[in-house]
Amino acid sequence: MGGDNAPGIVIKGANIARQRHPEAHFLLVGREGEIRPQLEKLKKLAEVTTVIHTDDVVSAEDKPAVALRQGRKSSMRLAINAVAEGKAEGVVSAGNTGALMGMAKFVLKTLPGVDRPAIASFFPTMKGETVMLDLGANLECDARNLVDFAIMGRAFAKTVLGVPEPTYGLLNVGSEEMKGHEALQEARDMLSSGEVPGFHGFVEGDDITKGTVDVVVTDGFTGNIALKAAEGTAKLMAEYLRRTFRSSMFASLGYVMARSALTKLRKRMDPRRYNGAVFLGLNAIAVKSHGGTDALGFAHACSVTIDMVKHRLIEKIRADYARLAPATPSKAAAG
Amino acid sequence: MGGDNAPGIVIKGANIARQRHPEAHFLLVGREGEIRPQLEKLKKLAEVTTVIHTDDVVSAEDKPAVALRQGRKSSMRLAINAVAEGKAEGVVSAGNTGALMGMAKFVLKTLPGVDRPAIASFFPTMKGETVMLDLGANLECDARNLVDFAIMGRAFAKTVLGVPEPTYGLLNVGSEEMKGHEALQEARDMLSSGEVPGFHGFVEGDDITKGTVDVVVTDGFTGNIALKAAEGTAKLMAEYLRRTFRSSMFASLGYVMARSALTKLRKRMDPRRYNGAVFLGLNAIAVKSHGGTDALGFAHACSVTIDMVKHRLIEKIRADYARLAPATPSKAAAG
Repeated sequence: MGGDNAPGIVIKGANIARQRHPEAHFLLVGREGEIRPQLEKLKKLAEVTTVIHTDDVVSAEDKPAVALRQGRKSSMRLAINAVAEGKAEGVVSAGNTGALMGMAKFVLKTLPGVDRPAIASFFPTMKGETVMLDLGANLECDARNLVDFAIMGRAFAKTVLGVPEPTYGLLNVGSEEMKGHEALQEARDMLSSGEVPGFHGFVEGDDITKGTVDVVVTDGFTGNIALKAAEGTAKLMAEYLRRTFRSSMFASLGYVMARSALTKLRKRMDPRRYNGAVFLGLNAIAVKSHGGTDALGFAHACSVTIDMVKHRLIEKIRADYARLAPATPSKAAAG
Repeated sequence: MGGDNAPGIVIKGANIARQRHPEAHFLLVGREGEIRPQLEKLKKLAEVTTVIHTDDVVSAEDKPAVALRQGRKSSMRLAINAVAEGKAEGVVSAGNTGALMGMAKFVLKTLPGVDRPAIASFFPTMKGETVMLDLGANLECDARNLVDFAIMGRAFAKTVLGVPEPTYGLLNVGSEEMKGHEALQEARDMLSSGEVPGFHGFVEGDDITKGTVDVVVTDGFTGNIALKAAEGTAKLMAEYLRRTFRSSMFASLGYVMARSALTKLRKRMDPRRYNGAVFLGLNAIAVKSHGGTDALGFAHACSVTIDMVKHRLIEKIRADYARLAPATPSKAAAG
């Protein structure tokens, strides 16, 4: 029931995901009266889908703490419960990010030793793709949180990008003066010991798209702003390009000639291809779809969820984390 | 002597700036033996240029505190001194940012009441241009610093963008949970009183290029990372576009047809057009050029400097600041 156009885009998105993953089964949780009529039009999806009815829905405006307390019968909560109960292997939602993280953390629990789960996603780069985390779950992080993100991001990159030995860096500014960012300095010192292999050191904002490292580690405030600044710039460039091709007859003709190649480029840069941010650090797969996406974008978030389950991401993160995490807990966990 | 290709690009850049601003005079500070031979090839520039010789140079690696202490005869310091002594009306450097800020603050002093100067620059947006500050001078800021940046950024936008009543916003994430970012909450409360007109509230990373507000206010850490993430994305898109036009014969033909329009687009997005970040909050104009720019980029930074002097930016900021600044000093200034 989450996102701007639920349950329509969720159902249509699930149908696209079903075509891509014929082995998948779907649990749709929400208002059966709204879901059923749309589902009945998609016979093949209906055959592999179970509907769990509930009237209660978490809204985009609900504060996470309120949703957690009052939303025990919400569609979001029941979907997460289904994972905890073994009825589903992963959950994907286009709803309220904070509520989803709060409920997922409460119900699914964090991996042993992990204090704070992080949100991770992919970025296109000059060289291929890069993972960045955290994208907004934790606005302030201590050094140990950043070390945890490095371990989890590395396992994610290994699993999903197929890079056997991923490199990672801590997002920072180039300035020599590092006043105030003790967490970054401290994390750098912890990681420089080499216990978590692949540490490249500090990276800057433009290193994200350069593909300098496989994993960019940052706090959720900075990561969210970098993500959105990049998304905004990509949209601006696309809009400028559109205006350019419309600016003269020759430019329009040029567009027609290059259309097939430009269509490929548009597909490659399509933000829907990058839809589906993964919550790392939980005992099960939880994926957040953009609230404003369409069926194709939601289908991609479903694919991410299914791929993570198939790749046994949780087991890999758990194993890496147990092997690599420093013995001392984070300040927040200790305090 | 600052930047990757000094003094060559500085001298050539000054020559381009001279053509654009026939009324300007230039003071070149640095190693006369390196400057003079290049200057002599540019007769018209030589006619309006004075060379101040010094052997000493601040390097890109020097820590600001060290440069301030040991670089009293450096070209950077003597150029700033020239402004303090009234021999020049503004200073532009492609050298070490931290050293330039440290020396400029020490020699030129901050405006009455301003605790921390900020670095400001323009961004292209869907609607035109937006000012963003701070871009890296202050990695951590308290609420009062952010209020100061709002006042200064507003005066800058009025002067340079010609917007009579600029709007401004505080850069934040969309999340409801604002734990830890007390400075942003506190600044929002201070600005919501309406004493500094044009407050839009919080804005997110993608609002920068949307052009939601005329001025985006943030701390130097976040601003620097947003700036570089945006620059990196623009480069990535340009590279993808280049590859696209080379990917097939039809695409190449399309490029040829649309070349004139695409060249205009490239010029519009040319990072050299956005070269020249202005230090706001000092008693005189100081401008930082990218260290890696070329003559055209350096010329643009010179143009920014000359424009700020002509527009009497300092007087305008001083007047606005005296009128609008809250009575209570910042924590850092008080403490």
